[in-house]
Amino acid sequence: MARKKRVLSGMRPTGPLHLGHLHGVLENWKRLQEEYDCFFFVADWHALTTDYARSRSISSNTRRLLIDWLSVGIDPQKATIFIQSEIKEHAELYLLFSMITPVAWLERNPTYKDMLQQLSDRELSTYGFLGYPVLQAADILMYKADKVPVGIDQLPHIELTREIARRFNYLYESQVFPLPEALLSEAPKVPGIDGRKMSKSFGNAIFLNDSAEEVRKKISQMVTDVDRPRKSDPGDPERRCVAFNLHRLYFSAEELAEIIAACKEARLGCVQCKRELAERVIKALEPIWERARELESKPGLLEEILNEGQRRARDFAIQTMVEVRQTIFGS
Amino acid sequence: MARKKRVLSGMRPTGPLHLGHLHGVLENWKRLQEEYDCFFFVADWHALTTDYARSRSISSNTRRLLIDWLSVGIDPQKATIFIQSEIKEHAELYLLFSMITPVAWLERNPTYKDMLQQLSDRELSTYGFLGYPVLQAADILMYKADKVPVGIDQLPHIELTREIARRFNYLYESQVFPLPEALLSEAPKVPGIDGRKMSKSFGNAIFLNDSAEEVRKKISQMVTDVDRPRKSDPGDPERRCVAFNLHRLYFSAEELAEIIAACKEARLGCVQCKRELAERVIKALEPIWERARELESKPGLLEEILNEGQRRARDFAIQTMVEVRQTIFGS
Repeated sequence: MARKKRVLSGMRPTGPLHLGHLHGVLENWKRLQEEYDCFFFVADWHALTTDYARSRSISSNTRRLLIDWLSVGIDPQKATIFIQSEIKEHAELYLLFSMITPVAWLERNPTYKDMLQQLSDRELSTYGFLGYPVLQAADILMYKADKVPVGIDQLPHIELTREIARRFNYLYESQVFPLPEALLSEAPKVPGIDGRKMSKSFGNAIFLNDSAEEVRKKISQMVTDVDRPRKSDPGDPERRCVAFNLHRLYFSAEELAEIIAACKEARLGCVQCKRELAERVIKALEPIWERARELESKPGLLEEILNEGQRRARDFAIQTMVEVRQTIFGS
Repeated sequence: MARKKRVLSGMRPTGPLHLGHLHGVLENWKRLQEEYDCFFFVADWHALTTDYARSRSISSNTRRLLIDWLSVGIDPQKATIFIQSEIKEHAELYLLFSMITPVAWLERNPTYKDMLQQLSDRELSTYGFLGYPVLQAADILMYKADKVPVGIDQLPHIELTREIARRFNYLYESQVFPLPEALLSEAPKVPGIDGRKMSKSFGNAIFLNDSAEEVRKKISQMVTDVDRPRKSDPGDPERRCVAFNLHRLYFSAEELAEIIAACKEARLGCVQCKRELAERVIKALEPIWERARELESKPGLLEEILNEGQRRARDFAIQTMVEVRQTIFGS
């Protein structure tokens, strides 16, 4: 039997996860772990590229992130889960790749200048920020990943990883690194409570660890059809209702058809409609909260899961580095 | 009793050592090891910044370098001797310093553009080459060195290390890293056989592992006083003789005075004079050759010395990294 293809993906521990992460990333990871040999890691060293001056929160965010992953159903029996900074080999491979990566490749990285502008309140013109695609290449190539799930805006990063792999193989006349492929995933758009893309920095997010009361309150604030001032006016949820984009994720096609009809016929008021949405979201979050409580209440359980994942990741990384050193230095 | 101050210094394993290294660096190290707690390391990762495309020679050069150090009298009982790439913590500290070092600090490094021009036959515009002062800072600060022996042209590097240490201490409200001081050493100028500074790349070097015959042949080729075509013409060794600059390192003041007089009075011919110089150099090299033979003939001896040095270096590095991680991440 051919071996399962390997998939690598990571997340920066920069804050609590919200419904945008759940539907945009984690639901995809849950599908991937059924089909592939998945390596999922907390990119805590990467978090330093933007958060080096507020690094104290990285540890608690890392713990929160892992609890969120496990709670939504990332399965340590199926996927290898680890924290980047626990596998020191990533730093060594980053250093070795540094030596063969032209600065020009990094400067032309389209997201580099974008982020410099977006996060202009922080001093990001650091050497590590310029080089984060080198660290990313080390993360991916360490495990000889076949596929890396990405959004379309991250395609240039995968291309850079492939270029570094190609250059390494060429310079050292080797085939150490297979070229990873992007696994383009179409993620549903998850609206924040103000209708913009859900994002912690916009202050419009429903977090996975919000309480039921917080979920109800946040959803009640969502803007519905502004051209429907009275309940007795007919609405047009598909075109004008922000909340309805969230309905799409929590109701079946049949239910959605009924909601649309009831709204257009002015049979269903917005307050009531959002209450039903909130209860549906809460119902979906309840098993997640349940598992999170379990993980939080059993001290040592998270550590046990991590130890096992990190043992597997480290074994792989050690093996890769033996090969890399042998290839570069011939000894 | 106050602890001895710590000194750190390294060399890139880019080729065999010559008399320029002996008089310019190693004689200084021998003095330093008597007074300080010295850490001397083979900077094999640094060698990759310029030699990444010919990396296979780095391993054999590393072995040769260690044998040369030990043969000239670097004493593993007094100094901690290790290979950089064996202490993986350097890579982690390099990565962490990456995150806090502005690219502008590196771009304004005066030797950066110089070397780009000097070594224009190689593609040096790599990320690792730009960042080698970051790796250097990691090497120095890992051992909390008090002093770093440097030539005057390397002062900007030490300043950069101090800036990185200052920035780390400031950002993380800590005193983890003391600011290292430059230990300016006046090294004698060692002429190559063509009169230019002795350097492997000029092809004018007398190597520590040259044979007696090679030493004789090379010294016989040295240019003497060109205004003294015949032996019977009076010479002016202090002003016009290339070989005489080497005499200065191998004869006593009294002997030098006699040589000068004999040359000026045309009592001593250049051929004879260089023969005497060659014998003096050979006499000085003989105990070095003897020790090198011993090291080469006892398999395992070099490894034993390295193991002990690396155990000491690693213990120190592990301790520093515990402190660094605690300071950055608070856990």
